[in-house]
Amino acid sequence: MPHAQPKSLRTLGEALAARYAAVRGLSEALVAPLSDADATIQSMEDASPAKWHLAHTTWFWETFLLRDNAQDYALYDADWPFIFNSYYETEGERIARFARGMLSRPKLGDILEWRAHVDAAMGPLLDREDLTPLIELGLSHEQQHQELLLTDIKHALFQNPLGVAMWDGPGSKSQCSDGDWYAHPGGVARIGHQSDGFSFDNEGPVHRVLLEPFALSSRLVTNREWDEFIADGGYDTATLWLSDGWAWARENGVRAPLYWRDGEQFTHSGWQGRDPDAPVTHISYFEADAFASWAGMRLPTEFEWEAIARGQEGTLPAHDAHDGNQLDEAAPPLPVGSEGLFGDCWQFTRSAYLPYPRFQPAAGAVGEYNGKFMSGQFVLKGASCATARGHSRASYRNFFYPHQRWQFTGIRLAKDI
Amino acid sequence: MPHAQPKSLRTLGEALAARYAAVRGLSEALVAPLSDADATIQSMEDASPAKWHLAHTTWFWETFLLRDNAQDYALYDADWPFIFNSYYETEGERIARFARGMLSRPKLGDILEWRAHVDAAMGPLLDREDLTPLIELGLSHEQQHQELLLTDIKHALFQNPLGVAMWDGPGSKSQCSDGDWYAHPGGVARIGHQSDGFSFDNEGPVHRVLLEPFALSSRLVTNREWDEFIADGGYDTATLWLSDGWAWARENGVRAPLYWRDGEQFTHSGWQGRDPDAPVTHISYFEADAFASWAGMRLPTEFEWEAIARGQEGTLPAHDAHDGNQLDEAAPPLPVGSEGLFGDCWQFTRSAYLPYPRFQPAAGAVGEYNGKFMSGQFVLKGASCATARGHSRASYRNFFYPHQRWQFTGIRLAKDI
Amino acid sequence: MPHAQPKSLRTLGEALAARYAAVRGLSEALVAPLSDADATIQSMEDASPAKWHLAHTTWFWETFLLRDNAQDYALYDADWPFIFNSYYETEGERIARFARGMLSRPKLGDILEWRAHVDAAMGPLLDREDLTPLIELGLSHEQQHQELLLTDIKHALFQNPLGVAMWDGPGSKSQCSDGDWYAHPGGVARIGHQSDGFSFDNEGPVHRVLLEPFALSSRLVTNREWDEFIADGGYDTATLWLSDGWAWARENGVRAPLYWRDGEQFTHSGWQGRDPDAPVTHISYFEADAFASWAGMRLPTEFEWEAIARGQEGTLPAHDAHDGNQLDEAAPPLPVGSEGLFGDCWQFTRSAYLPYPRFQPAAGAVGEYNGKFMSGQFVLKGASCATARGHSRASYRNFFYPHQRWQFTGIRLAKDI
Amino acid sequence: MPHAQPKSLRTLGEALAARYAAVRGLSEALVAPLSDADATIQSMEDASPAKWHLAHTTWFWETFLLRDNAQDYALYDADWPFIFNSYYETEGERIARFARGMLSRPKLGDILEWRAHVDAAMGPLLDREDLTPLIELGLSHEQQHQELLLTDIKHALFQNPLGVAMWDGPGSKSQCSDGDWYAHPGGVARIGHQSDGFSFDNEGPVHRVLLEPFALSSRLVTNREWDEFIADGGYDTATLWLSDGWAWARENGVRAPLYWRDGEQFTHSGWQGRDPDAPVTHISYFEADAFASWAGMRLPTEFEWEAIARGQEGTLPAHDAHDGNQLDEAAPPLPVGSEGLFGDCWQFTRSAYLPYPRFQPAAGAVGEYNGKFMSGQFVLKGASCATARGHSRASYRNFFYPHQRWQFTGIRLAKDI
Repeated sequence: MPHAQPKSLRTLGEALAARYAAVRGLSEALVAPLSDADATIQSMEDASPAKWHLAHTTWFWETFLLRDNAQDYALYDADWPFIFNSYYETEGERIARFARGMLSRPKLGDILEWRAHVDAAMGPLLDREDLTPLIELGLSHEQQHQELLLTDIKHALFQNPLGVAMWDGPGSKSQCSDGDWYAHPGGVARIGHQSDGFSFDNEGPVHRVLLEPFALSSRLVTNREWDEFIADGGYDTATLWLSDGWAWARENGVRAPLYWRDGEQFTHSGWQGRDPDAPVTHISYFEADAFASWAGMRLPTEFEWEAIARGQEGTLPAHDAHDGNQLDEAAPPLPVGSEGLFGDCWQFTRSAYLPYPRFQPAAGAVGEYNGKFMSGQFVLKGASCATARGHSRASYRNFFYPHQRWQFTGIRLAKDI
Repeated sequence: MPHAQPKSLRTLGEALAARYAAVRGLSEALVAPLSDADATIQSMEDASPAKWHLAHTTWFWETFLLRDNAQDYALYDADWPFIFNSYYETEGERIARFARGMLSRPKLGDILEWRAHVDAAMGPLLDREDLTPLIELGLSHEQQHQELLLTDIKHALFQNPLGVAMWDGPGSKSQCSDGDWYAHPGGVARIGHQSDGFSFDNEGPVHRVLLEPFALSSRLVTNREWDEFIADGGYDTATLWLSDGWAWARENGVRAPLYWRDGEQFTHSGWQGRDPDAPVTHISYFEADAFASWAGMRLPTEFEWEAIARGQEGTLPAHDAHDGNQLDEAAPPLPVGSEGLFGDCWQFTRSAYLPYPRFQPAAGAVGEYNGKFMSGQFVLKGASCATARGHSRASYRNFFYPHQRWQFTGIRLAKDI
Repeated sequence: MPHAQPKSLRTLGEALAARYAAVRGLSEALVAPLSDADATIQSMEDASPAKWHLAHTTWFWETFLLRDNAQDYALYDADWPFIFNSYYETEGERIARFARGMLSRPKLGDILEWRAHVDAAMGPLLDREDLTPLIELGLSHEQQHQELLLTDIKHALFQNPLGVAMWDGPGSKSQCSDGDWYAHPGGVARIGHQSDGFSFDNEGPVHRVLLEPFALSSRLVTNREWDEFIADGGYDTATLWLSDGWAWARENGVRAPLYWRDGEQFTHSGWQGRDPDAPVTHISYFEADAFASWAGMRLPTEFEWEAIARGQEGTLPAHDAHDGNQLDEAAPPLPVGSEGLFGDCWQFTRSAYLPYPRFQPAAGAVGEYNGKFMSGQFVLKGASCATARGHSRASYRNFFYPHQRWQFTGIRLAKDI
Repeated sequence: MPHAQPKSLRTLGEALAARYAAVRGLSEALVAPLSDADATIQSMEDASPAKWHLAHTTWFWETFLLRDNAQDYALYDADWPFIFNSYYETEGERIARFARGMLSRPKLGDILEWRAHVDAAMGPLLDREDLTPLIELGLSHEQQHQELLLTDIKHALFQNPLGVAMWDGPGSKSQCSDGDWYAHPGGVARIGHQSDGFSFDNEGPVHRVLLEPFALSSRLVTNREWDEFIADGGYDTATLWLSDGWAWARENGVRAPLYWRDGEQFTHSGWQGRDPDAPVTHISYFEADAFASWAGMRLPTEFEWEAIARGQEGTLPAHDAHDGNQLDEAAPPLPVGSEGLFGDCWQFTRSAYLPYPRFQPAAGAVGEYNGKFMSGQFVLKGASCATARGHSRASYRNFFYPHQRWQFTGIRLAKDI
């Protein structure tokens, strides 16, 4: 738990309550620049309206904490579970995913009132030690949706030909320096969540993986390098691509990362000049893999990445990889990037998202959280500029389909040594 | 012109200005119950957001009146034509139709300000006699969009499982009495717009059509009769249906009019009990045709309908068919129906929407108004409860594809005699 | 009946038997150049395999004549109606249309044996006067499928990049001379089938239609004129097109008639040089309408076309319009064209395919023949080089959707005078 | 090389020539029961016509052996590479995959003649030691296509409602006895191709994988067990399924393995009674995974499967796992199954199909063979009744998408110990 407090100052319950307040408050801060209409629209089936994220996270608290654990708690509105359940089959029928964008009601203000109501009801539960694991899950769940909220609203605003910005200013200015390689001699690595803090079920159980010698780049691939890839015909050279990737790029006319036009890229601050030295973002696994082939290297496995992040074998540089300049409640929401392994963008690995040995989903409805998505997706490691502070760790496993690229996705190269 | 004023009281310009103000004001009155988000969402490609209708009609005035005719008029926002042009190819590229629902900006308030700006600029032009035809076109155009706005927002609110209402109260209470038949002996009828008032290009030229003897029902088909059709297996009897209609009903699981569930129907006032004696509405041409086959009758041609509406051969009942209780600016927007040929719902004819002999589209961009839609659609006559008062006439030709049913569409039967 | 024989030589039954033999024989002659595999493949849902046409027409005889009228007739194979019924709902379930191309069995030879079996069983029925109308319908039905067989196999062979030919030689050599106009002064025309011979139900009842003065071209539009249309940007000028047509052309990348490449066109004899003076063929209604707009003219109505074909008002040239060089059993199957109204290609009219006044479909299953297709299609008049001899007449109404163009479709222009 | 001969009897070239003849001959034997039309149809994009398999394998020999290595060899038909190249981008443009079913020409006979021509030309090359690796690749390639030919034609014949059989007799009669578990204590296993014989590039390099203790069933899941799964609501219990699997089953109405109806299953011998004790086949990964969840177990990883197949740790039963009753040229093509790990059906593993450490695709066009398919697919191990004899080995990695099930796919369960 990155934010643990000295016990002498606060009880655990107080600490949890403070974190609960901070996480919930951040969700609301993120939508502050949005109109009710901004928060209502849905740009594709993969994405959800900002308002829906605010409501769905609240549904999670109301369902799994209040309804199941708070005596005499009555649902705020008995019709809302139908529209704000995401995918929990055990929680009953729900609205079709692509219809979330039709929910002009309840209004943004109605949902904010619901949030306040739920937050008030949650108060007494934050002290109950038996609920701590579920509360931690709820906090992590809400943090995940904060990132989705940011990437989804970016995609929604991008649809508007007027170039709408939700924030002022030129946005983040992360840069990649020349970089170096973290070498790893190979051997048996311990993989999976190993501390007392919270983790998702898919991060465990801890197990051993045998690694061959390899090296991982200390920096991310830059926009400049991507421009070189394009200039060298990267999008026109079939032999660089996976078969499915080539078909996907042809069918969708993909010839650059998402959000690029000329020398600009679309950001939460609208169209901005593109920094050649910033990490390339918004690429698909297919593009990442093709780029790595073009560069004569490859993507790392999730195990290689984690081994470096854990500093095993003395390969990790001195500065702490966990303190990337991630999203901070006090700072502007999209801060300057870092050169650690976390904080600029999620990094594709060549590992498919699959269960670790002896993995068992959690019991009950929350068991639907991670395990049921284990086909067809790839693992991403690290964290992005849109990831909530404290929401990443070496064992964290993000996952997306190989064609998806509306997240802040990037590349860190690896090679055999 | 149904609302012409005595010249002694007002100049023609003053009359036009009054009508301009009334029409423009009604558009805004219609969206008064809507939130910005309500006005932003788009439920299908056929429909447009309410906000978009407000903006598109304003674009029409700005483009064809102000830009082309008002000296030194500068566009309010040079980026807006791209998003608010509907389909005028000669006016340049425009946003894809299905992307209208992504326009959370400009906000509803921004568009209302634009409307005020344009209305102010329009003032001097309302006196210019040379522009009267174009202004009349603009008014009729805006009235058409008022009806679409109402049917589109109904469809959008229907998507919301919460059963959202935009108006209070049970809605209209039109009823069909027992009814009778208007007989016509056949002969040559004069068809097409024949007065001095405004009409669309597709209503002319006036020409003669030879009719066989026929009779047209004095009333519309009711919900009760539709229930009988269903109970008799109407939706399961292939031989009643057009081939395309049968395929459409199978593919889409159509087993009742749009907006029906159990004994209720969805209205602008939310879910309401269904009056068995009210006209059936929200049916497709395919359903209308199947019903007529089931009833042993047929749909009228557009020419038969118009001949009866014109009262030729003395068949028209005494009361004036043109004064149906249509939408009135002062009254609630969905008023009580009528038993005339106008005002409850648009009535499908078995006539395809095609050019009249010697039809020529208007010159210039407004020539794209009607002619280019002359394939695959059927003509509807009359007017619905959502049609602006004064916006219908015997020669009016509405048109939709045979599967569309989100308009207030109904049936008036005909038979050979 | 174009082929009626003197009664002294033959009984009516003998004449019918001769025609039956000729029609059935022609179907088999058409597939002579095809392999079993050629006759099995299906290139699109609109088209059927050649083998299927041979079988479906035989199913028609077996079902409506033998099963219903021949004592003790047992179905040749009780499983075959499921696969060879086309669309007769009253005849039960049937294979999905797009699955006809999966029928590698029964083999072509099996179907030819079935044909022989059915032909033998039909013998006694050809004398029964009560069955004559149904037999005439069966003959016309088979002739229609002969034309479809030819257009469908052409489309199938076209899919093969090897440029397969089913016939030797350069194919037809029809040419359009300079041409002239048939003028018509307007007035009331008698429309619909008026002789004793066979006709489909949709050709009646006879009724009167009032025509305005017009002129119809004595010749068809040529390939040379179509090249001019292309050179003048016809496919790039939105204002020439119907809205649906423009969308169709964009979506499908349509920039020339079907079967064109460079200076060639694909024919039953493979790729052949394109004769600039031959009629343009394989165009859609959308293209025909755009061309007419570009030429400053229009397409005729079906009534105008029929009035000229009937020679009313003395406008028809001396030579008999019915003797176009159509398909002849003895001659090569795709003969030289004509300058009459029949024989080179079907000519789009601007008339939607709708019922004539007082139209009633035939009773029973055969009533599904024509009436149920009366939405969304346009009427074509005349006949094409692939139409069976004797299968066309002034009242004949062919019909296709406005985007379809795998038939031998062309243009005869009209204008107001 | 499982079929290596004593050197004293044959030269290596003679042995290769004998195998070449046997493999090529088997391809032709497989299509012997098929008509030209059977061999032409294509039932879905995943499958290819039988004729195309015969031709594509021949194209492989002609392109990579004859064209590149035989002096003065001229292509048999210069137009054929366009239609018979499968997916080799470096070999140029090719016909769209879904259009392979349109190739009624060349005829089956034409392709058999081409095969004879190529076989004759191949003679001299079979002695060239430098070409041996490429020839071995060609043989394995052709064997893979033999299996696809069998599964594709089964799928094609299944489309025919008449229940077509290509072979007589009731088909294979493999049975599963009670079975036992092969236990493995865990540890480091050597994975990948380790002998001198042929292997595909994706089977290497050899590398070490760390395994946890586990057990693998000695038998396959049976039809009887699958019936129990169905009876217990397996297809209706969302929590048993992967999220993508649940969606796939809903959208496609999947409620049983492919080819099942009532107590029967479709086979190469037509519809046959289903043996409850035979292995279940034609299931997707999604179904296999749901079944394993229902059974309280899991699927093995590809590494666990291979470790057992290699008999490491003494866990492999005495009888040789490699001698499953696979396809034999002399025997009927679909022989009785076995209880070894090979021969009844391909067994899904829970391993995604990804590159082994330090994997490098082969140079040149043949490098497109395996590596470019490494996204979204799962590894299958073993071999099926349709796999060519000698074409399987412990390191063999077959791969399919999780929804595909037209291969002979089945389940061997695993569990943690």
